This record gives sequence, C-alpha cells and structure tokens, in this order.
Amino acid sequence: MSVRKLLYDQLEPTARKGRGLSPTNRLVSILILFAVAVVILESEPLVRSAAPQFFTIAESWLLTIFSAEYIARVYAAGEDPRYRGLQGRLRYARQIWSIVDLLAIVPFWLTGGTFNSALLRIFKFARLLRVARLGRFSQAWDLLSQSIASRKFELGITAGIAALVLLLSSAVLYVVEGAIQPEAFGSIPRALWWSIATLTTVGYGDVSPVSPIGKIFAGVTAIAGIGLIAMPTGILAAAFSDVIQRRAKAPTEERIEEESRNGVQISASSQDRSRA
Amino acid sequence: MSVRKLLYDQLEPTARKGRGLSPTNRLVSILILFAVAVVILESEPLVRSAAPQFFTIAESWLLTIFSAEYIARVYAAGEDPRYRGLQGRLRYARQIWSIVDLLAIVPFWLTGGTFNSALLRIFKFARLLRVARLGRFSQAWDLLSQSIASRKFELGITAGIAALVLLLSSAVLYVVEGAIQPEAFGSIPRALWWSIATLTTVGYGDVSPVSPIGKIFAGVTAIAGIGLIAMPTGILAAAFSDVIQRRAKAPTEERIEEESRNGVQISASSQDRSRA
Amino acid sequence: MSVRKLLYDQLEPTARKGRGLSPTNRLVSILILFAVAVVILESEPLVRSAAPQFFTIAESWLLTIFSAEYIARVYAAGEDPRYRGLQGRLRYARQIWSIVDLLAIVPFWLTGGTFNSALLRIFKFARLLRVARLGRFSQAWDLLSQSIASRKFELGITAGIAALVLLLSSAVLYVVEGAIQPEAFGSIPRALWWSIATLTTVGYGDVSPVSPIGKIFAGVTAIAGIGLIAMPTGILAAAFSDVIQRRAKAPTEERIEEESRNGVQISASSQDRSRA
Amino acid sequence: MSVRKLLYDQLEPTARKGRGLSPTNRLVSILILFAVAVVILESEPLVRSAAPQFFTIAESWLLTIFSAEYIARVYAAGEDPRYRGLQGRLRYARQIWSIVDLLAIVPFWLTGGTFNSALLRIFKFARLLRVARLGRFSQAWDLLSQSIASRKFELGITAGIAALVLLLSSAVLYVVEGAIQPEAFGSIPRALWWSIATLTTVGYGDVSPVSPIGKIFAGVTAIAGIGLIAMPTGILAAAFSDVIQRRAKAPTEERIEEESRNGVQISASSQDRSRA
Repeated sequence: MSVRKLLYDQLEPTARKGRGLSPTNRLVSILILFAVAVVILESEPLVRSAAPQFFTIAESWLLTIFSAEYIARVYAAGEDPRYRGLQGRLRYARQIWSIVDLLAIVPFWLTGGTFNSALLRIFKFARLLRVARLGRFSQAWDLLSQSIASRKFELGITAGIAALVLLLSSAVLYVVEGAIQPEAFGSIPRALWWSIATLTTVGYGDVSPVSPIGKIFAGVTAIAGIGLIAMPTGILAAAFSDVIQRRAKAPTEERIEEESRNGVQISASSQDRSRA
Repeated sequence: MSVRKLLYDQLEPTARKGRGLSPTNRLVSILILFAVAVVILESEPLVRSAAPQFFTIAESWLLTIFSAEYIARVYAAGEDPRYRGLQGRLRYARQIWSIVDLLAIVPFWLTGGTFNSALLRIFKFARLLRVARLGRFSQAWDLLSQSIASRKFELGITAGIAALVLLLSSAVLYVVEGAIQPEAFGSIPRALWWSIATLTTVGYGDVSPVSPIGKIFAGVTAIAGIGLIAMPTGILAAAFSDVIQRRAKAPTEERIEEESRNGVQISASSQDRSRA
Repeated sequence: MSVRKLLYDQLEPTARKGRGLSPTNRLVSILILFAVAVVILESEPLVRSAAPQFFTIAESWLLTIFSAEYIARVYAAGEDPRYRGLQGRLRYARQIWSIVDLLAIVPFWLTGGTFNSALLRIFKFARLLRVARLGRFSQAWDLLSQSIASRKFELGITAGIAALVLLLSSAVLYVVEGAIQPEAFGSIPRALWWSIATLTTVGYGDVSPVSPIGKIFAGVTAIAGIGLIAMPTGILAAAFSDVIQRRAKAPTEERIEEESRNGVQISASSQDRSRA
Repeated sequence: MSVRKLLYDQLEPTARKGRGLSPTNRLVSILILFAVAVVILESEPLVRSAAPQFFTIAESWLLTIFSAEYIARVYAAGEDPRYRGLQGRLRYARQIWSIVDLLAIVPFWLTGGTFNSALLRIFKFARLLRVARLGRFSQAWDLLSQSIASRKFELGITAGIAALVLLLSSAVLYVVEGAIQPEAFGSIPRALWWSIATLTTVGYGDVSPVSPIGKIFAGVTAIAGIGLIAMPTGILAAAFSDVIQRRAKAPTEERIEEESRNGVQISASSQDRSRA
C-alpha cells in the first residue's frame, strides 16, 4: 500500500470503513480541542501572564502539527479521483472547510512563527470553526441546512416580518424619543439597538425610553412585536426537531438492516414484518 | 393598446399574467428599498452631516418619481370596472394602501419640496410601510390576518387575560412600592411600565421593586404571570405556522394542476392518483 | 310580574333567555369599566391634581350605584330556590364573587363616603376583579381551571421541580457570592430574588454575580435551569390552548343541534351522519 | 415481628403495601421540610439575629433525629437480601442518596454539634437535596432521566451547537469590544458571561457592547443565536411533557387492571375490548 493511500485512510473520515474515527483523526480531534482550550485560556490576561512560555510553545507545536496535517491531507486527497493532479488539489483546497483550515495556519507563518500582529491574531479563532466538524457533530450542519431548506418559504416570510417589525419599532421610538435621548434614539440605526434588545427580550437596560409617550409606544411595541420576532426561530427550532428526530430513528433501521444481513433467521423474521 | 391599458399592465400587480413583477414594478420596488435606505441613513446625524447634499437631492428625485407613479396608478386604475370614472378613482384612493402612498408624498409638496417641518417629517416613514407590499412579501399580511381570524376566540380571551394580569400586577406593585418609589410605582399607569417590562421578560432594570414585600409580590407575579402574558403570542405563532404551512404546500398542488393541463399522459396519471 | 322577578331577570346573567346581557347588566358593565378607568387615572398624581373634584364626585356616584346594585342583586337572588329566605341570602352573599363585590363597596361607607384611609384604599382595586366576570370573559376562568385540572399531575410535578431549582440555585449563589455581595446574596431569601429574575429571564440587572466563581455557577444555573422553570407555564399554556380550542369548536356543534331541532329534513341527515 | 422488620416497614418506602407513606416516613418528611425552612431562614442575618437560640436548638434536635433515622435505616436495610451483613450495609451506604444523607449529618458531629466551620456549613444544604425524594415527587427524577435518555441524540447535538454558538459569539465580541471594555470583553472567558446573559435573554445589562461595530455583531448574534441556544431546553421540555403525559395516563390503566381482577364481569368486558 502506498504512503498516499495510508495517509488517505488515516486522514479522510469518509474513507474509514469501521465505526468512528481513525487513530490519527482521533489524535487530531484531541489536538483541535486542546488548541481551542489554548486559544480560550490564552485570551485571558491573568492566565497568559501566569505562564507566557507555555502558550508560545504550545502554539508553535500545535501550528506545526496542523500545518503538517494540512499538507498531508491535501497530498492524500489525490486518492480521490475528483482531486487528482495539481488541478484536483487546488479544487480540494478551494472547498470552504479547506480554506478555514488554511486560514488557521497561514497567519502563523506570515508573522514568523508567532501571531503577534493584531489583525492576524483573529485568524487564531478559525480553529474554533474546526470544532464544528469533529466526529458525529459534523452532521449537525447537514441537519441544520436541511431544516432551513425544508421551511424556506416560512422562514423567509417570517424573517421579513421580523425585519419590518424591528425597523418600524425603531422608527417609532426614533420619532418619539429621538429628541430626548439623542445618544440612544437619535437615529433609526441607533434605535435599532434598542429594538433588538427589547424584541428579543434581552433587555440590557442600557437604553430604554424615559418619556411617557415613549414608554407607551415601547410597551405596545414590546407586547405586539415579541411574538412576531420569535416566529422565525420558533419555526427553525420546530423544523430542526423534525429533521433530527427522523435522523434519530434512522440509525435503528440501519442497525436492523445490518443485523438482517447476518443470518437467514433474522432476515426471515424481517420479511414477515414487511409482509404484515 | 391605450396608454392607460399599458400603465395598468405595468403598475397593477394583479393584472400581470406571467410570474413575478412587471419591469416597471420591479424598478419601483428597488426605488422603495432605496428610499427606505435613504430615510434610515439620513436619520443618523453622523451620516447626514457627511453628505447633506446627497440626501436633499435623493429625496427630491425619489419623491418626484413616487408622485408620478401615484398619479399614473390612480389614472390607470380606471381599467378596472370597479374604479371607473372620477367616483371610481376616489374609491381607489380611499383604500388603506392608497392613503399610505399619498401620505408618503403629500407632506413633501406641502413643505415646498422639502420635509423641513418637524411634524411632517414623520410622514417620511410611511414609505417603510410600502415595503410590506413588495413582491411575495405582500401575502404575509393575508396569512397573518387569516391566522388571527382562525383563532379569534382564543386570541380575544387570552389577550383579555393578559390585559387583566398586567393591570392587576400593576395595581399590586403600586400598592406595595408606590410610597417607596413614587417615580416608578407612584400610580397604576407608571407601574404598568414595570409590569410590561417584567411580564414580557424584557426586564430593562430601570425600575424594579426594592422593598422585601415588593420583591415577594413581584417574584410571585413574574412566575405566575409570564406564562399567561405569552399565551396570545404563542397562539398567534401556532396559528400563523399552520396557515403558512398550508400555503407552503399549496404551490406544489398548483404546479401539479398546471402540469396536468399540459398533456393527456400526466392528466391520466393524476386521475389514477385521485382514484386511488 | 313582581318587582323581585323583574330585578332578577335584569341582574342575574344566567336568568337571561336571549343572547348577551340584559340592558341593566350592560349598563353595569360599562360602569364597571368606567370605575376601573377612574381608579387607574386617579392613582396618577398628575391627573388627580388636575381634576380633584371630578374623582371625588365620580367615586360617590359610582359607589352609590354599585351599592344599590349589590342590595338589589342580593334581594333578587331570592327568586332562585337555593337562595330563598334570609339564610339563602347569606349563602348567596358568602360566595367568593359576592364577597369581592361587597369588599369593593363597604370601605367607602366605613370611611364616611370617601376612601381616605390608606389601608381601606386598597379595596378600591377589588373592582378590577369585577372586570374578570364581564360578558363572555367570565368563561375564561372556567377554561383556565379546566386546563389546570386536566394537567394536575404534570403541573404539580413540574412546579415542584421549578421550586427546587429556584431554591438550589439560590443556595449555590448564596454560598459563592454571599460574602462579596451581602446585600444581594447574603441569605437564601435574598438570593431567591436573583434566582427568580434570572431563571424567568427577566434579568433586571439590579443584582448579578461579580466574582468569577459566582459567574460560572450563575451561567451554568441559567443554562440548565431556564428550561426547567419554564415547564409548568409551558404545560399550562398547552393545556389552555387545548381546552380553548375544544370550546371554540363547541359553539358550531351547538348551532348544528339547534338547527337540527328546527326541521325533519336536517334531523334526518344528522341521523345519517351519526349512523355512519 | 423483629425490631429490624418493624423499622424496615416504617423507614423503607418501597416496603409499604398501602398507598402513601408510613407514619414514621410522613413525620420524617415533615421534619425535612422543617429543616429546609430552618436553613433558609437561618441564612438571613435579620432573622438569625432575632432568635439565635432557636436556630441552635432546632439544628441540634433535627440533626440528632436525622442521625438516628440514618443509623436505623442502614441497620434495617439488612431486611433486603441485597444489603445483608456488613458488606451489604456498606453497599447500601455507598448509594448516591445514602451519601447525600450522610453528608447532611456528619459535618454537624465533626464540628462538635455545631456547623461553625465556614466550609462545613455548605453541607447543611445537602438537606435541600433530600426534598427531591419526598413522596410522589421522587418519581420526577426518573421521568426526567427517561426524557433525557429518550432524546439523547437530539439533546447531544443541540447542546453541542449551543456550546459552539456561545463560544463563537464570545470570540467575536472579544475581538470587536475587547480593547474598549477590557474588564467585560478582555478575554473569551470574560465575554462568555456576556454571551450567556444575552443568548439566554436574561440580559442583566452589567455588560453590553458600546461601540457601533460591537452592537452590530451583538445584535446579529442575538437574533441568530437565541433560537439555537433554546433548542436543547425546548427538546427536553417536549420530551419531559411526553414522558409525563404517558405516566399521567398510566395510573388509569392500572386502576382498570385492578378493577378487572375483582370480578368476572369486568374481566370479560376487558377481554372483549382486547379482542376488538
């Protein structure tokens, strides 16, 4: 077996025949979670100042490993007929997730093995996105996009209503409170911050109407608008629940099929069931 | 074909035979969205002061176009037998949406081509309401009013309960906290602001009980009342979801009907289906 | 027809044969709503000081009318065999709603035709409760108590869980934040105010943990507890929606029955339906 | 009957043949509720200072009784074949609820009959957990764990999405607001407090973005994220409602079975039913 085939089997999750992840991918998953923990803790000044050496070294090691893994994965992608040759590799690298992976590495090398440029430091957080593809979790995004697709019309129309409600309530509060609190309600974009905080029921309290007329309009807006704003998320949650429940049942069926392949006796009983 | 017929076909969405909007209405839609963007950005002092000329000119152009469009639409309405003659045109202009359109234009001309009167400036925001009628979005209001109609009894009774809960909790807090915080709880209308903020769970925190007895009553009110206040919006959301889902399925049926009209073969198979 | 019978037909809603309310009860309903408006507006110092005479006179008239109505209603109750004689009248007056009515009147006369005692002024708000019995609205309470009865077990158990979650989260925050913020978290009852504000998602912000450990526990509590606290109200809302929807359908059936009684033809078709 | 058998019948709820609790367990339940009231009230300095003697004495009595009850229960557990002998008693004492009971007692004796050590005082709150096992309430936890088990996949995947949304929104706000408000957004863990407060819609308002760019990102995050964060609790609530409703119906069936055992006539009709 060629080195490329070996790398492909280890690094490409879909190439795996057995259940779960390959040993290499299990290690990479653990390293990604570790890298996430590093970036979270490092952001805290109290922790960083306590062990500045640790984070510098950990970053260097992690980035070196991820770089090697990236190169190996792009190289091994050639096993897939779609990604053969230099053209194929570029096609592989142009995929959204490959770009995320690249963005998480390149800034490190651009800054000479550190992330000391303020702007480039943002790319560190690209590794948070890699978590979204770990193990069984990666299917969550398929389920989520399926949910959105299955209720496109409802989501679109309720999102439109929500946007209009936000805009109208901002305009109303701008008109009635704009002169009294110019900092908070002096324009529609400013009043929009209040609208979002109120209609999502977050209600920080950093801005709220003070005039009686403002309070009356805000109260009416809140009572009438909160339900409308919550509609798209409610529809999405219901759709996701539907999609996920169908998926939760699917594995059982797969398991039955698997079992039925293992022997005549079970296969017969499953035929009985299908005849009934 | 007369000029009036031409205008009617271009300006009246229901006169359109094909899918979507006529070229003229597509342009008007874009101009409405542009006019909304203008009014939002212009309200922000930082933006307005950066380009004061732009907004004056944009307003003049937009209002002139919308005025021409309004006149053309009222004139073309005569194609519809219901709106024939001067009497018919007045009937057309008395419709709620025609009045909204008129309100968005008239103040501009009343102030000599500007909106410099503080009061009349409010009418600028009438154009926000025009967004509600753009494209497929316009059916949202039919769906919403269908939802309300389908649950009239439930909505009425739960809205009544919600109003009573708001009133009673205001009265309770007025009694127990009125003397301590006269500004916030010194009357039932004042305490109502607290009730709305609390029972919608917005909770700005600008007013909240400080006495132990006030906190006890407020806590009990919050726990018991939040569920009751949320009932009408919950019922409306469920009704809207029902109505919208039925509508989302409807187009498929229409498409099948359309297809079945195109040939005997499909028509036959659809008969089979209906026989089954 | 005796005076008592006349009064009974006018004042007792259940004695009414036709739809809706008797002319007298319609007037009383309007007066109750007016009395509610009076008590709300009068509570606001700005309004009261603007027209102090108006409120004194309005109160005198309203209370005199309500007193006369109360006496007339108790007297007329004798038409009902259950409330015959003095014993029966006392039974009538001991009903919860009769007591509410009495409480709304008596303090007025006890203070010599005014409500100038601070304590007795509270009884003014008893009239708010009378709103709950106006017209079709009165059935809302039957529906609500039906909803509670239909889910007694679920409501009881989820309310218990909610209470325990509130208590435990208060105890946790008392332990971790009590020493730092004694005013807000210095005892379990004090911390309970925070728990209620947080777990109902009201979040006034008057009290919130400041220490890192307090924030960690508060964050975990919020994420885990909010869903549990919302369960009883969610179950109640669902139950109420069920009960109310069944009720909304009921009138249609009644109407069909009514119609079926009017002729043989419809009655026959309804028998066909019941046979099917 | 031996003393051990007597104690077992009185202290072990599952040994009870009749409905409800044994007289001893009813007394213990009341004492637990009383002990909870004591620990809640004692935590309040105003109450404690009013009657310091009362709490010292009450604690001594309660702890002595609970200690005796604990010893008696462990001793009586020997009636159950599983917990026979010293080995069996240790097995009994190693159960999670037995440990909770022990933790609620031991610190009292370790501190010489008081809870005067700050650290050990925390164990006082272990008695709050005992409430969770009182009477019919104890089954709530079985129902809750059944609900979780029945939706393991959905809960896992939505909890993962929720965690990722919290993390990403914290990272975004850390990047855009970290420099302006280092105290509140100066690290991802710090920004996480804002994320939790916002996405659960609690919104204390102690921290909120102040820069326009921060508000834009926070607004988008709030609108998009709130629905996602609420998914696991929504799924749990739905699952719990399902499980609890099935349980609420179960007793009726049990009762029918019970009745059917009492006579041939009912048993016959129930056979008819099962044949149909």
